[in-house]
Amino acid sequence: MSKVAVLLSGSGVFDGAEVNEVVLTLLHIEKQGASYQCFAPNIAQMHTVNHLTGEADGTARNVLAESARIARGNVKPLSELEVADFDALLVPGGFGVAKNFCDFAVKGADMTVQPEVLAVCSGFAQANKPAGYMCIAPVLLPKVYGEGVTCTIGNDADVAAAIESMGGRHVECAVDDLVTDNTHKVVTTPAYMLAKSVSDADAGISKLVAQVLATSL
Amino acid sequence: MSKVAVLLSGSGVFDGAEVNEVVLTLLHIEKQGASYQCFAPNIAQMHTVNHLTGEADGTARNVLAESARIARGNVKPLSELEVADFDALLVPGGFGVAKNFCDFAVKGADMTVQPEVLAVCSGFAQANKPAGYMCIAPVLLPKVYGEGVTCTIGNDADVAAAIESMGGRHVECAVDDLVTDNTHKVVTTPAYMLAKSVSDADAGISKLVAQVLATSL
Repeated sequence: MSKVAVLLSGSGVFDGAEVNEVVLTLLHIEKQGASYQCFAPNIAQMHTVNHLTGEADGTARNVLAESARIARGNVKPLSELEVADFDALLVPGGFGVAKNFCDFAVKGADMTVQPEVLAVCSGFAQANKPAGYMCIAPVLLPKVYGEGVTCTIGNDADVAAAIESMGGRHVECAVDDLVTDNTHKVVTTPAYMLAKSVSDADAGISKLVAQVLATSL
Repeated sequence: MSKVAVLLSGSGVFDGAEVNEVVLTLLHIEKQGASYQCFAPNIAQMHTVNHLTGEADGTARNVLAESARIARGNVKPLSELEVADFDALLVPGGFGVAKNFCDFAVKGADMTVQPEVLAVCSGFAQANKPAGYMCIAPVLLPKVYGEGVTCTIGNDADVAAAIESMGGRHVECAVDDLVTDNTHKVVTTPAYMLAKSVSDADAGISKLVAQVLATSL
């Protein structure tokens, strides 16, 4: 049975992990016969957004503690993740990736990746273990895999240009489809970069999990 | 196409709606050809629980704003819900039901239901429109439907006894099964009262949504 590490960046699309993407990821890992452990960095969120108004409310929240809301408490500090214990990595999206895992939301292509996140993602890359990144999470890939890594965030021209300027290759992709970089064993799908509904997101995420698990065997 | 109102009690199993149950509910509504609108009361949560430690942290959160995290901002105040606009009601569980929708978590069988929640749930009952309650949410049913309403919360003896002492009839039920009260058109499933995994919860919730939608036609 493949064991998958799932990286969470909080809980809520505007300042954390995209909740639907996380739950669908966990569902499809289980339904496809694998197991998982969720991890999150024990760091402050960039900010807290009231998801009703879209405004930052000035309060502080912790990425690990908020991630625990989706995982029903069963989330470990990212510092405890040992790449050797897992067969694959999955990174759901949400602005938490662009705000807490890196500073893409603020700096665009001049972004840097949070050190623990970079170490873990690079660890899977160096171990030649497969990984799946969804939604906005592929902005991390040029920093993790270096120049030439091929991926998709759907069809957003600005984000695609930023990925290209960091050295990645962006390929447009429909919400129910995947882009697979066989050299780097990395699979990407647009999820809520394009999804209009939960079932839209479900279609691509189901395929992404299947592709990553197939590569992990 | 059936339109379903989904009631959210926050975001996070220990002080709000059970996140996985909500996402699976929305997924199955869509996959089964219906549409939905999420609603939540614009009230303070009973308290905020750090989902990593399980301890209340003393901060205040709002049920409507936190519910918006799961719904990607697309949640309306419960005060705006018109029963006439919907064919069915679905109520996911989580401690938010027992803490924010009523005070069962504190008072057990001596509980009262939050007035807006009681008005909406009773509105669907009086309109003879079907409803599905999952996880701990069936504790609301004796107050909504009166004596003799038949339901399940799985097999927890204390909660079952409380439901019976409020006038309900409790029937034990497996996580992948349903209890249907045809007289009241109310369907219940244990979900995370018994689920050990997301796919456990998925099995019962999928059936519950199907049963409620079939009854709404």
